This record gives sequence, C-alpha cells and structure tokens, in this order.
Amino acid sequence: MGRSMAGHLIDAGYNLVVYNRSADKAADLVSRGAAMAESPRAVAEQSDIVFTMVGYPQDVREVILGQYAKRPGVLEGLRPGGTVVDMTTSEPALAVEIDAATQRCGGTSLDAPVSGGDIGAKAGTLSIMVGGDLSTFQRVQPLFETMGKTVVHQGAAGAGQHTKMVNQTLVAAGMIGVCEALLYAEKAGLDVPNVLRSVSTGAAGSWPLSNLAPRIIAGDFEPGFYVEHFIKDMKIALEEASRMNIALPGLALVNQLYHAVAAQGHARSGTQALMLALRHLSGG
Amino acid sequence: MGRSMAGHLIDAGYNLVVYNRSADKAADLVSRGAAMAESPRAVAEQSDIVFTMVGYPQDVREVILGQYAKRPGVLEGLRPGGTVVDMTTSEPALAVEIDAATQRCGGTSLDAPVSGGDIGAKAGTLSIMVGGDLSTFQRVQPLFETMGKTVVHQGAAGAGQHTKMVNQTLVAAGMIGVCEALLYAEKAGLDVPNVLRSVSTGAAGSWPLSNLAPRIIAGDFEPGFYVEHFIKDMKIALEEASRMNIALPGLALVNQLYHAVAAQGHARSGTQALMLALRHLSGG
Repeated sequence: MGRSMAGHLIDAGYNLVVYNRSADKAADLVSRGAAMAESPRAVAEQSDIVFTMVGYPQDVREVILGQYAKRPGVLEGLRPGGTVVDMTTSEPALAVEIDAATQRCGGTSLDAPVSGGDIGAKAGTLSIMVGGDLSTFQRVQPLFETMGKTVVHQGAAGAGQHTKMVNQTLVAAGMIGVCEALLYAEKAGLDVPNVLRSVSTGAAGSWPLSNLAPRIIAGDFEPGFYVEHFIKDMKIALEEASRMNIALPGLALVNQLYHAVAAQGHARSGTQALMLALRHLSGG
Repeated sequence: MGRSMAGHLIDAGYNLVVYNRSADKAADLVSRGAAMAESPRAVAEQSDIVFTMVGYPQDVREVILGQYAKRPGVLEGLRPGGTVVDMTTSEPALAVEIDAATQRCGGTSLDAPVSGGDIGAKAGTLSIMVGGDLSTFQRVQPLFETMGKTVVHQGAAGAGQHTKMVNQTLVAAGMIGVCEALLYAEKAGLDVPNVLRSVSTGAAGSWPLSNLAPRIIAGDFEPGFYVEHFIKDMKIALEEASRMNIALPGLALVNQLYHAVAAQGHARSGTQALMLALRHLSGG
C-alpha cells in the first residue's frame, strides 16, 4: 500500500526520498524519480515531511523512535520543524508517545491510518483518518488528498488511530455477518448469487457483502487485506476497549474466530477466509 | 407495513378486499376504495390473490390455516385456483406446510417476506424475497412490483423465508457492529458525527451505519423495526441453523444481546436500541 500511496505523491509532483527494508519493492518508485535512502534517519535528513507505513506497532517504534537499534530511526534525523506522519494502523497511545517525542525533537507529528485496502491505495480513494495538531494537518492535507478521497481531521494525537479502531470494529461485524449469512444460504440450498440480489441493496447491505461475498462464492481467498493484520488491529481495539472499561462482545467473538482462521493456516489469506473457519466449525 | 403495501395495490388500480383485527387501521384503505371483510375467510371468498402480513408464525397459522379457531382462515374461503401470498417473516417449514395445505384446497401459495421496513413499505422500495412455484410467482410479480423495487424468485416454497433469514443474519451483525463502534467512539472522546464521515464510505460502510447510526447519535430509539419482531426473526434463523446443523456464533450472540434489550424494557423500541443495552452492559 505504501508504494501505491508514494506513487500518487510522485504523480502530484512532489520530490520523494524513500526507504524500504526490501529495497527491490521500492525499485518502481526509484525508476519514477524517487531517491533511495539507506535508513529511516536518512529519509528524515532529506525531507520536510516523513510518511511511515509499516506492519505492527513494534515496527512503528523501530522506524520512528529508533528503538531496538536495528537501524537509525526517523527522529534521529528529523529536520527542525519537520513532520512525521505515521499511516500504519497502530496503537493510539503510541501515536501520543510519538507526538511528544517529535515535539521534543522540534517537530510535529500526525497519526493518519487509512481504510480502503490495496485497491483504495492504488486508486487514490482511501479514507485517511488523521489525529494531531490542526495546523500540521492543514499543511499536510494537500499531500493526503493525492492518496485519498476522504481526508478528515479527527482530533488530537491518537484520534486518527481511535477512528481506525471504530472502522475495524465495523469491519469485524461486517465480516461475521457476511460469512454466517453465506453459510446459512449454502446449507439452506439457496442459489447464493441470487440471494445476494435480494439482500445487497436493503437494510442488510454493506461494503463486505458487495465486495467480499462475491470473492467467497468464487472460492477466492487471496488477500486484499491480510488476516494477520486484521488480528493485529482487533487486538489494539480490544486492548483500548479494555483500557476504556467497555465491553465489546461482538468484536471479542470475531477476534477469537480470526485466531481460528490463523490457526487453520490462513494468516496470510484475505479476511474473507473467515468463511473457511466458519465452514470448518460446522464440520465442512 | 401492510397498510402501505396495500395502498400501492390500490394506486395501481387493483380492487382490494381487506381485513384487519383492528378495523380502524384499515379505515384509510377503505376511504380509498377498499372493501372491508369480516374475516380472513371472507377476504379469500372475494379475492383471486390473498396477501397476508401479520406478526408471528402463530398468527400466520391462524390467519391462513384457521388454527386456534379464533376466526375462519383464508384456506376455508379460498377460490378454486386462488393464491395465498404470505409476506410475514415466518418459518420456512411453515411456508412449506401452507403450500401443501393450499394445494389440497386447489390453490397455490407463495412465501414472500420483505426487507426495507416501514420506510421501504411507504416508498414502494422493498426487497421482496419469494419462494414457491415459478409460474405462480410470475403471475403475482406485477403486484409485487407495485410494492417493491427488488423482487426476486428464490426457489421452492420456503426459499423466500430462508432468504429473509440470510438478510436478518446480515442485519444482526450490522447492528452489533454499529453499536459497538459508536460505543468505542463515544468512550474514546471522538466527535462521533465526524467519525461517521471517515468510516461510512469505505470497507466499514453499511446500511445500518448510514441509516441508524445518525438516529442513535440523536438519541432516537423510535421503531422503524421493533426489537420484539427482530427477536422473533433471529429465533427462527437460529432454529433453522440448528436444524441444518450449523453454528452461527455471531447471530447467537446478537440474539442474546437483544434479549437483554427487551429485558431492559425496550421490546417495542427500534432495533437501534441495542445501543442502550451495550451502554448498560458497560455501566452507562
């Protein structure tokens, strides 16, 4: 996703310095004019705004804060007045921690996770949920708008991540709904594509029903969005919910079922592989 | 809903004979030209096609089969070649039973539950999911199309009801998703309407998010669709799932939470009142 998003910045005329652990994944960007740096620090030394898009919160810590000492982090090279924008789906508390650390380095930060998956990243139609200082948001907004069509400032540092957790709570429910509904339809002997015609446009309609149910029916469990990344997101949401002292029984159930999906060998399948675990649960 | 749907038939030029336990609820239809009958049997004696739209499966049994002897049922007055169309959300097995009984009386039947609620009934935009003989469906189709914009034949008797169960399984998941997401957003201190701007159009988007979340935010728990009727629907779906020997853990959880909604005094509120039970669960 990071590659597609960086490509939109190049298309819009921005000068890019890029870094990726697997350099070959950045070759396309380099061929389009991006300079390759040797570390996150080196990117920051040459950039006014540094975007990060990695996998897990510990990767965010390493890349931005330089923790675990594998390679120098962004903050070690931050320019005076530089801005760090983390677009990874990560922990709200980590976004607050990064914001404080960035300010101590004389810069500013935003947390800006996205929704829309690989397809949205390629098409530039992501929803970008932004936390952090408003004036910093306004300065970065034109760059966000090359990558997404829904760009909304949600509040102070961490608010972007919290908003993404709201998004993922909705996605989790959508997935269990689609998979249980399809399992029912299959077992009832219905013509499943025909059933979708009846249920897609009314009160049962949803993005996963329109976009993932057809993949499931076609037996396509390739990743748009990895099961293991979704498990990471739900873990963060449930930890935050626990910290806020609220019960989210639906999300907790879906999280457990996705652990079953991963246990059955589908951690690197798409989230629609929940269907396989549900069928398995019922002996299929 | 039945009144709105009957109104569309009048608007399309059909002659109607109507019956309702509370006669005053049919006064509007009578003023628009419908004749009032004294029993379901009397409706059938004067009609080629008899539509029923009642509350629970036992009401369907009484009105069509004439069981429990409160008043004569539709089949006692069915004309030769007459058709019974039950639009109540009811049990698939009951639809099969009615179909057999109707055939023994020399007629035909369809099960044709709807989705779209009071708003869809008024606007004539319902999704109508139809089970039964195809040629009977084709004969009734023009009448369905006065009431709905998505009219699909789903298979033999009972297939309409099964399709509605698929629909309600999706709705159940949608409701828990919306309510848990809103609870998270509230507790995280986010600007909830602003959060909806970020999450409504992407992978988290759904009909209940677009249509019921704004009502919840506004504190509006008035019924579009009653909690007690939704509990009835989920009970049927779970009994069918049990009969088909499949596990639907998400639907079972939502069903339990809706029993909590009812237990807290909201059986006659709208389904969005799940939010109240979730807040209550977390001490709110």
